[in-house]
Parts: sequence; structure tokens; C-alpha cells
Amino acid sequence: MQIIPFLRKTGEAPFTDRGIKKAGQLLKQWNGEKVRGVAIAGAPLSKTSISHSGAHLSPQTIRSMMQSFSTYSIEHEKDMWDTVITDFGDIEMHVTDLFESQSRIHSVLKEIQEEHREAVVITLGGDHSVSAGAIQAFQETRGRVGIIQFDAHFDLRNTEDGGPSNGTPFRQLIEKGIITGDQLIQLGIRDFANGKLYHEYAKDHGVTVYTMGDIKRESLLVLLKKSVEQLKQTTDNIYISLDMDVLDQAYAPGCPAIGPGGLDSESLIEGIQWLGQNESVKGMDIVEIDPTLDFRNMTSRLAAYVIMQFTLNYTNRKHSV
Amino acid sequence: MQIIPFLRKTGEAPFTDRGIKKAGQLLKQWNGEKVRGVAIAGAPLSKTSISHSGAHLSPQTIRSMMQSFSTYSIEHEKDMWDTVITDFGDIEMHVTDLFESQSRIHSVLKEIQEEHREAVVITLGGDHSVSAGAIQAFQETRGRVGIIQFDAHFDLRNTEDGGPSNGTPFRQLIEKGIITGDQLIQLGIRDFANGKLYHEYAKDHGVTVYTMGDIKRESLLVLLKKSVEQLKQTTDNIYISLDMDVLDQAYAPGCPAIGPGGLDSESLIEGIQWLGQNESVKGMDIVEIDPTLDFRNMTSRLAAYVIMQFTLNYTNRKHSV
Amino acid sequence: MQIIPFLRKTGEAPFTDRGIKKAGQLLKQWNGEKVRGVAIAGAPLSKTSISHSGAHLSPQTIRSMMQSFSTYSIEHEKDMWDTVITDFGDIEMHVTDLFESQSRIHSVLKEIQEEHREAVVITLGGDHSVSAGAIQAFQETRGRVGIIQFDAHFDLRNTEDGGPSNGTPFRQLIEKGIITGDQLIQLGIRDFANGKLYHEYAKDHGVTVYTMGDIKRESLLVLLKKSVEQLKQTTDNIYISLDMDVLDQAYAPGCPAIGPGGLDSESLIEGIQWLGQNESVKGMDIVEIDPTLDFRNMTSRLAAYVIMQFTLNYTNRKHSV
Amino acid sequence: MQIIPFLRKTGEAPFTDRGIKKAGQLLKQWNGEKVRGVAIAGAPLSKTSISHSGAHLSPQTIRSMMQSFSTYSIEHEKDMWDTVITDFGDIEMHVTDLFESQSRIHSVLKEIQEEHREAVVITLGGDHSVSAGAIQAFQETRGRVGIIQFDAHFDLRNTEDGGPSNGTPFRQLIEKGIITGDQLIQLGIRDFANGKLYHEYAKDHGVTVYTMGDIKRESLLVLLKKSVEQLKQTTDNIYISLDMDVLDQAYAPGCPAIGPGGLDSESLIEGIQWLGQNESVKGMDIVEIDPTLDFRNMTSRLAAYVIMQFTLNYTNRKHSV
Amino acid sequence: MQIIPFLRKTGEAPFTDRGIKKAGQLLKQWNGEKVRGVAIAGAPLSKTSISHSGAHLSPQTIRSMMQSFSTYSIEHEKDMWDTVITDFGDIEMHVTDLFESQSRIHSVLKEIQEEHREAVVITLGGDHSVSAGAIQAFQETRGRVGIIQFDAHFDLRNTEDGGPSNGTPFRQLIEKGIITGDQLIQLGIRDFANGKLYHEYAKDHGVTVYTMGDIKRESLLVLLKKSVEQLKQTTDNIYISLDMDVLDQAYAPGCPAIGPGGLDSESLIEGIQWLGQNESVKGMDIVEIDPTLDFRNMTSRLAAYVIMQFTLNYTNRKHSV
Amino acid sequence: MQIIPFLRKTGEAPFTDRGIKKAGQLLKQWNGEKVRGVAIAGAPLSKTSISHSGAHLSPQTIRSMMQSFSTYSIEHEKDMWDTVITDFGDIEMHVTDLFESQSRIHSVLKEIQEEHREAVVITLGGDHSVSAGAIQAFQETRGRVGIIQFDAHFDLRNTEDGGPSNGTPFRQLIEKGIITGDQLIQLGIRDFANGKLYHEYAKDHGVTVYTMGDIKRESLLVLLKKSVEQLKQTTDNIYISLDMDVLDQAYAPGCPAIGPGGLDSESLIEGIQWLGQNESVKGMDIVEIDPTLDFRNMTSRLAAYVIMQFTLNYTNRKHSV
Ligand SMILES: [Ca+2]
Ligand SMILES: [Ca+2]
Ligand SMILES: [Ca+2]
Ligand SMILES: [Ca+2]
Ligand SMILES: [Ca+2]
Ligand SMILES: [Ca+2]
Ligand SMILES: [Ca+2]
Ligand SMILES: [Ca+2]
Ligand SMILES: [Ca+2]
Ligand SMILES: [Ca+2]
Ligand SMILES: [Ca+2]
Ligand SMILES: [Ca+2]
Repeated sequence: MQIIPFLRKTGEAPFTDRGIKKAGQLLKQWNGEKVRGVAIAGAPLSKTSISHSGAHLSPQTIRSMMQSFSTYSIEHEKDMWDTVITDFGDIEMHVTDLFESQSRIHSVLKEIQEEHREAVVITLGGDHSVSAGAIQAFQETRGRVGIIQFDAHFDLRNTEDGGPSNGTPFRQLIEKGIITGDQLIQLGIRDFANGKLYHEYAKDHGVTVYTMGDIKRESLLVLLKKSVEQLKQTTDNIYISLDMDVLDQAYAPGCPAIGPGGLDSESLIEGIQWLGQNESVKGMDIVEIDPTLDFRNMTSRLAAYVIMQFTLNYTNRKHSV
Repeated sequence: MQIIPFLRKTGEAPFTDRGIKKAGQLLKQWNGEKVRGVAIAGAPLSKTSISHSGAHLSPQTIRSMMQSFSTYSIEHEKDMWDTVITDFGDIEMHVTDLFESQSRIHSVLKEIQEEHREAVVITLGGDHSVSAGAIQAFQETRGRVGIIQFDAHFDLRNTEDGGPSNGTPFRQLIEKGIITGDQLIQLGIRDFANGKLYHEYAKDHGVTVYTMGDIKRESLLVLLKKSVEQLKQTTDNIYISLDMDVLDQAYAPGCPAIGPGGLDSESLIEGIQWLGQNESVKGMDIVEIDPTLDFRNMTSRLAAYVIMQFTLNYTNRKHSV
Repeated sequence: MQIIPFLRKTGEAPFTDRGIKKAGQLLKQWNGEKVRGVAIAGAPLSKTSISHSGAHLSPQTIRSMMQSFSTYSIEHEKDMWDTVITDFGDIEMHVTDLFESQSRIHSVLKEIQEEHREAVVITLGGDHSVSAGAIQAFQETRGRVGIIQFDAHFDLRNTEDGGPSNGTPFRQLIEKGIITGDQLIQLGIRDFANGKLYHEYAKDHGVTVYTMGDIKRESLLVLLKKSVEQLKQTTDNIYISLDMDVLDQAYAPGCPAIGPGGLDSESLIEGIQWLGQNESVKGMDIVEIDPTLDFRNMTSRLAAYVIMQFTLNYTNRKHSV
Repeated sequence: MQIIPFLRKTGEAPFTDRGIKKAGQLLKQWNGEKVRGVAIAGAPLSKTSISHSGAHLSPQTIRSMMQSFSTYSIEHEKDMWDTVITDFGDIEMHVTDLFESQSRIHSVLKEIQEEHREAVVITLGGDHSVSAGAIQAFQETRGRVGIIQFDAHFDLRNTEDGGPSNGTPFRQLIEKGIITGDQLIQLGIRDFANGKLYHEYAKDHGVTVYTMGDIKRESLLVLLKKSVEQLKQTTDNIYISLDMDVLDQAYAPGCPAIGPGGLDSESLIEGIQWLGQNESVKGMDIVEIDPTLDFRNMTSRLAAYVIMQFTLNYTNRKHSV
Repeated sequence: MQIIPFLRKTGEAPFTDRGIKKAGQLLKQWNGEKVRGVAIAGAPLSKTSISHSGAHLSPQTIRSMMQSFSTYSIEHEKDMWDTVITDFGDIEMHVTDLFESQSRIHSVLKEIQEEHREAVVITLGGDHSVSAGAIQAFQETRGRVGIIQFDAHFDLRNTEDGGPSNGTPFRQLIEKGIITGDQLIQLGIRDFANGKLYHEYAKDHGVTVYTMGDIKRESLLVLLKKSVEQLKQTTDNIYISLDMDVLDQAYAPGCPAIGPGGLDSESLIEGIQWLGQNESVKGMDIVEIDPTLDFRNMTSRLAAYVIMQFTLNYTNRKHSV
Repeated sequence: MQIIPFLRKTGEAPFTDRGIKKAGQLLKQWNGEKVRGVAIAGAPLSKTSISHSGAHLSPQTIRSMMQSFSTYSIEHEKDMWDTVITDFGDIEMHVTDLFESQSRIHSVLKEIQEEHREAVVITLGGDHSVSAGAIQAFQETRGRVGIIQFDAHFDLRNTEDGGPSNGTPFRQLIEKGIITGDQLIQLGIRDFANGKLYHEYAKDHGVTVYTMGDIKRESLLVLLKKSVEQLKQTTDNIYISLDMDVLDQAYAPGCPAIGPGGLDSESLIEGIQWLGQNESVKGMDIVEIDPTLDFRNMTSRLAAYVIMQFTLNYTNRKHSV
């Protein structure tokens, strides 16, 4: 093949600096081989949202925001260039049959985690409804799950009024007997963002709830340590479900359900760093970012940073690969 | 009840001029009584769209754009103040079961048109998928339907790949045996906006297709007259399905599928005026406006103007009420 | 009246969850009866602003943002569903006679508070000019007022250069002899946001001024406690005038006069919670939000949250109703 | 004074091409001397608008859009470099006393036109309310005025409901006896944009009204010729009042009252060119552009082009200076 | 390799309809083999623009807009599925050395056209400065060039004031002796968009200039026929240089230099269709689209449509491949 | 010259309050005389940016944001009305020759600082590439420079890949032997924002690097004190290079390279206040603000506030003028 100098393929970066590697390049499209370490999979479903949501666009946006970071952590003086983050691609959603779409999320994530037992899959929503299938698949392949849910909301709504939506994933898991309430710890629950009935449901089912008031009084890190200790008593592995709307509207302007009174991004990052190091954390999802509402992709940018910080700390674990 | 001067109820117009009546005030919420004349009903469904769409927001936006027009037509020197446009409200959509939503569109519109035989219902989408149920309901209550579809696209896609979406309404009607192709005339079909397979489908099923080239050669008005003549041979009543993307992107910037090479708004209005006068036209829908993409609600504003021009000309029909 | 299943009235919520009540539903349009507890009234005046302002749109925007919150405070484990927030509607503004508009604000708010002595009215601006009439009406009906003004600015400008504008409300009150300077405490006054002449005016008239520097050194809560103690010496009741631009631009992007160096929203909310509980606080206004400049209604959303937190804490007062 | 190469004063154009002169440079700040030829004066008043309007920002925006044009007309092969367009600056508006502002518009424009009898002043609104004072000043200094109003609306509303607003300028002129209806010709009046009562008022007072239907049937140019002929019978000079909302929303996206069914920009320019040549045209205003609503200043850009085309054709008049 | 149902690779279309082929799929990345027929190459240079321009982003945007069209022309009843549009990718620009970037555009396009003599390369700018190198390369490989330039501007500015910018490409070609003025025909030149000096330069050098006035009087198609006839006398092949700002601002809102008084898109498309069929047309560029300024990529969408219409008509030429 | 009441010159403030002086008025265009104290000069260069940047627009935007502040510091109870901030204007950039532009920045700033030895010049970028010339000029006129660089990035990239860009200014200074690494202290360097190779370069050359982690552990103020102490050992004067992207994306939404994990604006301001008082600080630049990306000019507004706080504290220095 003839080569023409200065002609580059469509889609290649317009400029390359020999001294900077882009985090986006750590993403390697899955090639069918056995996967170890951190991986991502897109679950681009947001037609299941109660309000209009473009959250299905966020897997692609988060990937492109990875490209705005480099591979080098100066705080750890570590270049992650040799780390592979496997990209399993996106789960294909049905145009009109949303239950089929939800079923595909479950079955694909189950198949992935069955085949790739050393992989820590980060599922990129989509809205929070994707967590129901994702967590079920996690437990079916990884043993009894302990869930740390960052969220302003319980997501324990009844499923009769609107079916399995982004307001119901944890209710679905409990109702179907996939988890019991003690497997679930919710952090960041906020005033005037939830119904009393669902708080009662949480209490009745033994769900642990830490409010923003709790976080302000005790600090996120202290509560995370408590949570992991508690979950390790009764579960095999910990799964993080990160609804970005746990953050204050000033830090996550691109979530459909923005509001005041939430977490700051510095605390969240600190929390993720700690969880990344923790041996028991084996699964994660990042949900509820609508790129059509965001400002300059700030919220997807933060999600990409979360992935990098998690992966960095994960690779520092004693037995990590 | 005590009255305080200069205190007005929440939601009332901040300023009222005694000499101007707003078109929005012609909309009267249905009170359960028998309805005659032009009526509207919202079908706020757009989760059925192949691409991300906020078209479910357009019934409400079109209603509020009615408020930007007055009731007086200077061209006819006629004040429509005494005309009532009954507002049946919106059909409640299911959050996650889209087939249930489509079924509700059909059943509600059928019930409305059964009970209100003198009403000409304009269904406000939503995306074009709402037309399948709307047209079925029209035919079941009004006799054999002749359809004049304004559209850049056939909307004759197969339903296997994505189910009953905004690309399939007319295919669904044909496949289910509700209509035969000769009941359907498509106007404004555009280059590079459709698949050859579906053109063949149209031809195989006897659908009449007028392209933008045909419109430029013969004029919209001439083709509309031809179309109505042709449909009147074999059908009882005519139904207009107005996909706003028949317009060029310069005139309808708020359609999901905008593009160049389309109709100008002046021609469309002229066509609607003529159809409004025509005795045989008894139903209509206006679809595919996404207010989240529009510029200053231009496209919803045009839709509201279409409703007013249609209603004006309808009330001028010989036997109109 | 005939009922059609799945047909809902125009304007009704598209989806209702049995377990979530929306804060917006606490707002009940005033029906002429005696009102107790928290109430709101819109004063949609912003033509009086020195710079172009759409703040007259914020009463309606704040109301709709109420709808984005629920009625349940998890921090207090209290559902406010039984609490009524009476909505007196909006005061009708004159199109061109701004002095007439200001006069109506005074007279309507006076009449409301005269008739409804147990009501705590929150006036929703509009710009800060509405506070002059609102505070005068408060004092005329509730006794000698003590004012806690959250603001980056003194609002003590002379009234000769531009008449009674959003830069002058507290000057007007002093000049007209309605209040003396000792009735006024200003919190959050900022560097490079005010004129020296007006600081001198404040000092000459005995106005207490706490700058952002004071707040950073002593904390908002400490200063609020001091302020309430001080005002209680000489006044009957406390009125809060909340100019949202007291907040840093990162937290209140929708104020006309945004800038750096301001308060964070967490501190403000904490302050409002404390004031809500305080027996002496009997009136409030929230001003200077321009929804046309805001990002995703963040600032109006925060204002709605302020109303909810105030009302929650108000209803927890010993003698509250 | 020491000169540093490559250092240019703040505000100077960042790049200058020796072969291109910018139309903006034809604007010379008035220096107190006698003015001949075309001049502009800003009347930045829009608090008088019935709806929220930022039209007071348009004089400054139109001036800056002048800078996006050159001085050379290729169609006439004429460089206007030697033409001066005197810029009288802006009339200072009162912050809160709108009647005072209106009075200043009248008095300043009167004083200008009294002193500068050879000047053709183009008043840049602001909203249409500025035309009342502008036209009064024109007649008081130039003799009996004939008005050609381009507008979608009559602007003949009663002044009792909201005072002298942007809906009332021509009513005010008639009511005050400054003009009689036969002095006024309205072009471009549109369906559903006006009240019947005001059409009757127009007819009762002998105002000539040409609708968009008339323009489509007869062409703008034909109607302009008719109009000028008619006005010349009974008036001394012609004044053009150009409300940019006479244009279709596709061509003037920045008018507060945009809508479909209006004029295209090509026809307007052709009309202005013809009027520019006409000896009897001696005054003009351009109103109702809100730069905060526009897209890329398209509407102000068109206004600047109107000024250039008018000035070009004016300087080609037989007796022009 | 293991296959997981419903898992698709990152970047693949989220939905595929068996009956619709996307025009974007006609683009095949060049594989080193000999190319025939229409091809594209990106020249993402816009730092050479006199004003701030993001036109370097348009090759990528135009490619993605190709994906919004299908491959089927209903007007010709022809599916272009078998047509390949070779995508040579983008020419790599230097970050800071703009002359190096311009040199690369010339050398890469020369090498491409030397090796692929049956290819008709459409160069996607970038700003208009890319045409200088592109046209030189065209002539060096294809014989004496005749240029049809669609543009509001001459682009004949002197190169001393700012170097070889987007205002100078045709001047550069003439000054360097690469072309003589008679090889250049300019269409769409507009009032107040150019300097007199450069009109004189055009005339002095025998450049043919058709203004917008000429187009309105004679029609674009008539002038194109005349132009091709004239150029064929003295040149070997025709090259189209399409500056999208030849269009009126209503049709091309995304050009840096938008303005009123330009061409409508329907006329442009008609012209491109005719040129596509013409045997002598062998090269083209499309320039001056800034996607950061556009509305919903309307202008890039139109450019993609131009590519499709050109390719369609090209493949219908007698001797085309 | 005749004076007309209420007529003000184009460009003058529409409203003046006798008690408020605008900070923008402290800016006095340089008149050729000897300058003392704080001065500004614009270096509107951003074509040198690796990514698309409109940072060349920020000198003008920062100037206009000065107008949104007053001259009075309430924290110091000091009116700066008598302080002059000399505005040297903008350095004229070449349209296409970026190296020439960089050379002009150096030579103009050198000439300014040579002639005005008592002036503290704040250079307003532009992108960070302007600092190379600015710092060289500073050292050539003021003696051995110590640099405090606020930045998320090293800006120590190699200059071979893209030439002297906004990623290379400090590398250029070192490579050219203008500074040695010990003259440079970098504050705010962030995870995943830099290449390992360049960290090694920093270490190899003795550059002091404080990361965001360091700042969180030790506080900005502590590190600044350390830094100034350290630099004073070996250098004559300190120069602050303030890349606004050192701030978190929530506080500086208008930087091209926004991201999470950065500094908050309160800390930055506190740091600037301290530096302003410090005798050794004699030069500064503020770079990397792109007004086309910002939200409501928040980032430029903060830059203007930085200028005011620096100037305030500068004028409080013992020997300041
Ligand atoms: Ca959630
Ligand atoms: Ca949530
Ligand atoms: Ca359709
Ligand atoms: Ca369509
Ligand atoms: Ca205030
Ligand atoms: Ca304030
Ligand atoms: Ca008008
Ligand atoms: Ca009008
Ligand atoms: Ca050009
Ligand atoms: Ca051009
Ligand atoms: Ca930097
Ligand atoms: Ca940086």
C-alpha cells in the first residue's frame, strides 16, 4: 500500500504529542479474548426514564471524554499506559420493546462476567434502570452482592405505576427476591427528593440509608468505610452504583434530576479512590448523565475521571492484575 | 370571597388588551359534552422514535404557541372568537410499555370520534408512530379513509427490525390490512431520505408518491387537488397526516430529521388553507416537532398557525358548524 | 360527564407515582379564605432594574421548580403533605407606569397581610425594587420590622439618578422614614460590588454591614444569631430579604449581577433552616433571579428549595400553625 | 508621545486590510456641526414593550453589525467611502420613568431635525413605541408626514389598558391629533396577529392597510409605488417605520413577535432600495430587534444592510448630498 | 472469537434497518489501491482565517452528516449503494506553522491526483485558504484549470497585510502565475461584502464576476451554462470552489461570514446537479463552514447533500465509472 | 459645539450613578507617558493552541468585565478611584505568521517594561504560549525571574511535534537557556492531565512541582509562602503565570481544558491577595480563557476580579506607587 506523508485516516487524532498518552487509548475494543482487570460496557437505555432523558448518549460521550485525560497520575507518579481497559462495546437496545432491552442488559452482562471472571465491569448507563439487570448479572456470576448506591434518590418506587423505570431498579431487585434490603446501602439521599412511603419501604426491608445530612456530619469516607465493613459481613463482593445526581447541581449540571444540597465532586473522587483500592469492590455502574443537558460535557468528563481514578487505584490493589 | 384589586390568579395572562383575543383562548378543555367542529388531542409519545426525540413535548408547546396568535384573520376579515376548538387533553402514556401507549392512542381516539361524530380531531404528536393508531381509529369511526401524508419520508419501514416505530406507521396500517396502498398519497418525499426497498414497497402496494421534484414541477396546490380527486373515488373521508419535516430545514428547524431540499412554509400554509375548505377532510395529525431542538419554538409556532388556518377555512365550509 | 380512560386534562402531570407527592402541589391557589402559615405572592416587576432583567419571570419559574421537589424531608423524617402553602397569585403590573406597579405591590401586600395576620408571606420578585413596598407593607401590618438582607450589594443608591430601582429599595425605606438604619442588617456585602459613598451612607445611618470577609471569618450561622439577637432588641418581627446574588456565581448562575467571591449554597441553606425555626421571622422575599439567563433553572430551583426548607422549619416552630 | 510598533489601542480592529473599508467606519460620531445626509440616532427604549424585550440593545448591535459590511456596492460599482453617516449617539433613557424616556425621544429628535434640516435621521429602536415621538418630531420639523409602516401588526391598540406601549404608537399619534389616518399606510399586516377591533379602528380612521395576502397578490414594489403616490397627494414628506417583524420568522429570527407567513428579506431589500431613491422619503426608524433572542445577530445584520442599501440609494438621488 | 448476541462494537450504529442504507457508508477509507470516481479529502485548516473560525472541524462534521442521508435518490429512482466515495482521510496540519500546513495541502492533493487520475477529489475545508493549494494541485495533475467559484466575496485580497489567508486564495494563484484571471469565474458576489480595489483587481486581470444581482436577473443555471461554455474555450477541466457563504444567512447559518442578500439553497442544489452531470467538471472543494457556529449542523448537512447530489449526477455521466 | 440634553455619545454607559465608580474606568488608555503601577496589555494570540481556542478574545472580554465591578473594596474600606491601571492596548497579531506574532509579543512587552520600569504589567492572553515571550521580556528588563505558575498542566511539552504552542512555553524558556528549572514553581498540577515524560523533564531540570494533592494537604497559601521564599533565594523578581484552568471546571467553565479535581476560586483569590501584597511580585499574565466557551463570562469575570484584588493589594505595598 502506497503511503502519502501527512495523510492520516479519518477519525485519527489531528495532533499527537510523543510525550502524552491519552486515557482514551487505554480503551481497547474487546477482541474475543479472556479479559482481566477493569472493563467497560455501554447500556444505552434511557427510554425507561420517567422524565425525558438522553442518558443513552452517555456511554459514547464518556468514552470521548476519556480522550481529554492523559494516562499519567502525578499523585501516584504512575503512568497507566500498560493498563488495558477493555471496551466491550454497547449492548444493542430494541427501538420499541423496552423490556427486551432490559433483558438484553441482563443477559449480555451475565455472559460477559461469566466468561471473564477476573474482569471488573463498569456498566455505563443509560439511566438508573440499567442497574437492575446489571446487579442481577453481577450476583449471578460473582456471588452475593453488597451494593453501595450513590444517589439523591432511593429508586425504590413501586413498579405498578410505570413499570420497571429509572425510579425502580432497587425495588425490582428486592421484589424479585434477587437481593434483600440488607445488601443495599444508599448514600447521599436528599431532602425533598423522595417519597415518605419509599423511606418506609427502605426501613421495612432493612436497607441502610445515609442522607446528605449524615455525610455532612460524618464525612463520606467514614461512611464508606462503615458501609464496606457492614456489607462484608454478609456478602461476597461489593458493587458500586453511581448515580451522578448524588452530586450538587454545581458539580454535575448534566444529570436529568439536578438539584441543590448534594455532594461536591472532591468528596466523590476521594470516595472512589478509596473504593478503588478496596479488594471487595468488583463491579460498578455510572448512570444518569444526559449529555444533551450538560454544560461542556462536565458531567461526562467527571465520569471519565471517576473511571480513571478507580482503575488507577484498582491496579494498585495487592492482588490486582 | 374577598377580592383584592390587582391580584390575579397564578397562570393568568399578565396583561390583557380589550381589543385582542388570543387564539389560545379558543381552546376549551373538554367538559364531557358533545363536541362539534375542530378539536385537538395530544398523543405525547416519542419513545417510539428511532432517534432520540422530545416530540412528546410538542402538544403542550403547540398549545402555548396558540397563545402567540390572535383570533382575527385579516385576510378573511373574520374574528374566530365564537369558534370553539375543543381540547380533549392528552392521552396518558405508559412510562415503559410503549405498545400499551400505542394501544391507548388508538382506543382513546376511537372513543372520542365515536362519541363526537361531528368533531374533526387534530391529533398532536408525538412522533409519527402515533398516526397508526390515530388513522385506524379514524377509519373505524368515519368510514374508509383516504390519507394525504406530508412527509420527506415514506414511513414504510419493516416492523421487524425495531417494532412499530416512527418509521413504520403506514407500513403497519397496510400490513394489518387496515388500509390498502391506494388509500395513501405521500407528498414531499425527498432524495436521500429513504430506502429503495421502501419505494418498491410503496409501488407494489399502490401507494401514490409525489416527490419534492414533482411539487417543484407541478406545485403543491395542483397535486393536492389531484390527490383529493383521486382519493374521493374510493374513500369516504380524507385524513391529513402532517409530518413537519416535509418542510425545508430553514422553515422547520425543530424537526428531528431536518434537511435541505424541502417545502417552504408559504406553500404548506396555502395547501392547508385549501384542504381546510375541502368538505372531505375530516381528520388530521401534526407530528415530529421536538421542542428541545427547535429555535424559539418556530416549528411549534408554525404548527399552531396551521391549526388556526385549518380551523378558519373549516368554519367557512358550506356545511360546517 | 363521560369519562374516557387514559385521557387527562391539559396541564396535568404526565405521570403520577402513588408514593411521591410533589412540593408544587402544596401550593394551593388562594380561595378567599383566611390564610395561616407560609404563603407566596408574585411581584413580577423587573422593568425597574438598572440593567436588562427578566426577573419578572421568576415567580412562575420558582413555582414550576417546586414541582421538581417532593414533600418529604428525610432529614426530619417528615412528610409535609398536610402543609398548605397558599399561593396568592401574582400582582398585576402596569405595562408602562412603573410607579403604579410599585404602588400596587405595596397595597396588595398590605391588604394581604392585614387580612391574614397568621400568614407568613414570601414575596417572589421580580428584582430587588419590590422589597421597598413589601417591607413597608410588612411593617404597617406586623409592627416594627427588623430586616436581614442577604445581598452582595447595599442597595442604598440615591434615587435621583434613576428613580426607585433595584439599586435603591433600602435607601427608599430610610429616606421616607419608614425604617431607620438600625432596623437593617446586611450580610454578604462584597468587594468591588458597591460604592464607597453608599458604605458611608450605611454607616451614617446605623445600618449593620457584614461582608463576605466577615462571613468567612465568623461563619454565616454565627452572624445570623448575632443579627437576630440585635434586631430583637428594637423591633417586633424579622423580615428576610434574600437577594440570590449573595451567592457565588458558581451556585447562582441565573442572577443578573453574578460574580465570584460569594456565599456557597450549603451555607445559605443552613442559614435559612435556622431562620425558619426562629419565632421572630415573619416575612421574606426572594429576588433577583432572571430565568432567561440561568442554566437549567438552577437558581430558581435553589429558590424553591429555600421555600421548602423555610416552610419545613417554620412548621416545626413551637407555636406554628 | 512614544510609539511602539505593533501596539494598537484598545478597541481598534485587530486586522486591517488596505483594500477593504468597513461600513462601520462611515459612522462618524456627531461633532456638533451641521449635518447633511443620512444620520442615525439610538432610542434604546424597550421597557415599554408589552412582552419582555431586549430591543434597547439593538442600536449598539446594529452599529457593530455595520462593521461586518464593507463600503462597496458591486451592483452599483460604487464605493461609499466618502459618504458620512452621522452617528448622533443614543438618547439617554430614564431607569424607571418611561414617560420621561418617551418625552426625551421626542425632544431630542425634534432638536436634531430642527437644527439639521438636510439630515435624514434613521432612529434605531428600541421597540415600536419609539416611533410615536420620532414621527411627531419628524412632522414638527419637516411638515405633514406620510407614514409607510412595515409591520405584521397595526400597533393601534388602546392606550388605557397598558399606557403608551409598543402596541400603540400609531394610535397615540391619531388620538393626540398629530396625524390623521390618511397619513398612514400599513404594509404586511398578518392573519392572527391583530384584533378585529383595531382593524375597524384603522378603517374608521382612514388608515390604508395592505395585508400579506395583498403583497403576495400584487408584490411589495407595486404596493410601495401606489403608497408613495397616494401619500404624496396630501403630505409633505414620507417617513418609513420599519418593524422588522414584518419579515417571516425564517428571515428575522430576532424579533420578539416572530411568526410564519411574513415577508422574505429579498423583497424587503428591494423595497428599501426603491424607497431610498425616492425624493420624498426623509425619515425612517428600524425597530423591534431583540439581540438577546436573535441567532448570530442575523436580524441586526439585516438592519445594518437596510441602512447601507438605503444610504446607497439615497446618495444616488438627484438632489442628495 | 466468542460472540455475544446484542453486543455491538463501540462506534457502530445503534440501530440498523435492513431497507435503509446510509450515505455515510458509501465513504470507504482509502486502502492504498487505485481510486476512480468521487473521493473526499479533508483539509482541516482554519487558523489561516482572518476572523476566528472553527472551519477545520467541518470535514469531520460533513462526514457525520452524510450519515443522516440514505443512498437512494427517489428523483432518479437510483440506489447509489454500489457507488464508492473514497475517503482519503484528513491532511495533517501543523499546530503552529501555517505555511507548512498550506504546503502539505498542496503536496498531498497533488500526490493523490497524480496517482489517481480517474478520481474526482472533493476537498473539504477548512477555510477558503485551502483552495489555493488544492487548485494548484488540480492544475498540475489535470491540465489547465477553469474555476467556478461560488462566493459572496472575491477572495482577491492582497497578501501583504495578513499573508496567505482565507481572503487571498485566488489572488495567490494569480500572483504566483499559476492561473490567469480568465481561468476564474466568480458567482454570487454581493453588495457591501468586498472592496472596490479588489473589484478593480478582478477586472484588470480578466476575472469574470457575476453578482447576486446578475443571478437574480438571469438565474444561476443560465449563468452556469454560460460559464462552463466560456471556460471550456481555454481550459482543460473545470474545478468548483464552493464557499458556502454564497448562500443567504437563512440557508447557511454556520458560515463565519453570514449575511443577507445571498443565494437560496434550492438554486444551489439545482446548480450542483447540473455541474455534476457536466463532463468537464473534475474537481471541487467545499469550504467556510464553522460547525461551532452552526444551528443543528444545517450547513454541514447541506454540504453533505451537495456531495450526494454531485456524486449522483456524476455517476450518470456518459463516461463516468 | 451645540449640546443636546439627554444625548450621549455612542459607547458611553447608558446609566451613571453618582455614587458608584466602575472598575473599568480605572483603565486609562496609555497616552505615551511614563507609567507606574499596575498596567495591562493584551496578547490576543490563540491560533497557537493545540486545540481550537478563542482565547484571543479574552483581553477584550476581561476589560469589559472590569466594568461589572466597582472601585470600592469594602474589606479594606478603600476606594481605588485614584488608582490608574494603564491599558497599553493589544499587541497586533499577524493573521498567518504565528512566529511573527510570538516575536511581537516579546518585543512589545520588552519595550514597554524597558521604558516603564515602575510598571507591573499584567499580560492578558491569549493562550499560554504568550507567556514564553512575556517572561523573556520580563527577565530581560527586570532581572532574573522567579516564576509561580498556576496550572493544571506542566506546559513542558517538546516543541518538535507542534512547534511553540500553548503546551510548550516553559519548555521553550528552558531549552533556549532563558531560565533554568529552579526558576520555575508549578502549582495545581493535576492527575491525568499530563505526560510522565514531562514530569521527568520537570524533575530533571529542577522545576518545583506542587500537585493538587499537595495543595489539599498543605493549602495554597502555605505553598505560596514557601514558593516565594524559595524563589527569592536565587531570583530578583517574581512573575505569576496564571493559567485559569488551574481552577476546577465548576469555577472556570470557560477554559479550553476544563476538568474536575481543580482549585476553588476562593483559594485562588486568597492566594492572589497575598501575592499582590508581596514586594517581590512584579509581573503577571492571565491566560487560557475562551469567551466563546464560557457561561455568562464567569471566567473572564473572575479574571477581572483577580486584576482588581491584585491591584488593591499592590497599592497597599509599602513602597508601592
Ligand atoms: Ca437513581
Ligand atoms: Ca438519582
Ligand atoms: Ca414521518
Ligand atoms: Ca418524516
Ligand atoms: Ca439587591
Ligand atoms: Ca444584589
Ligand atoms: Ca409594530
Ligand atoms: Ca410588529
Ligand atoms: Ca471565500
Ligand atoms: Ca466568502
Ligand atoms: Ca498552561
Ligand atoms: Ca493548563
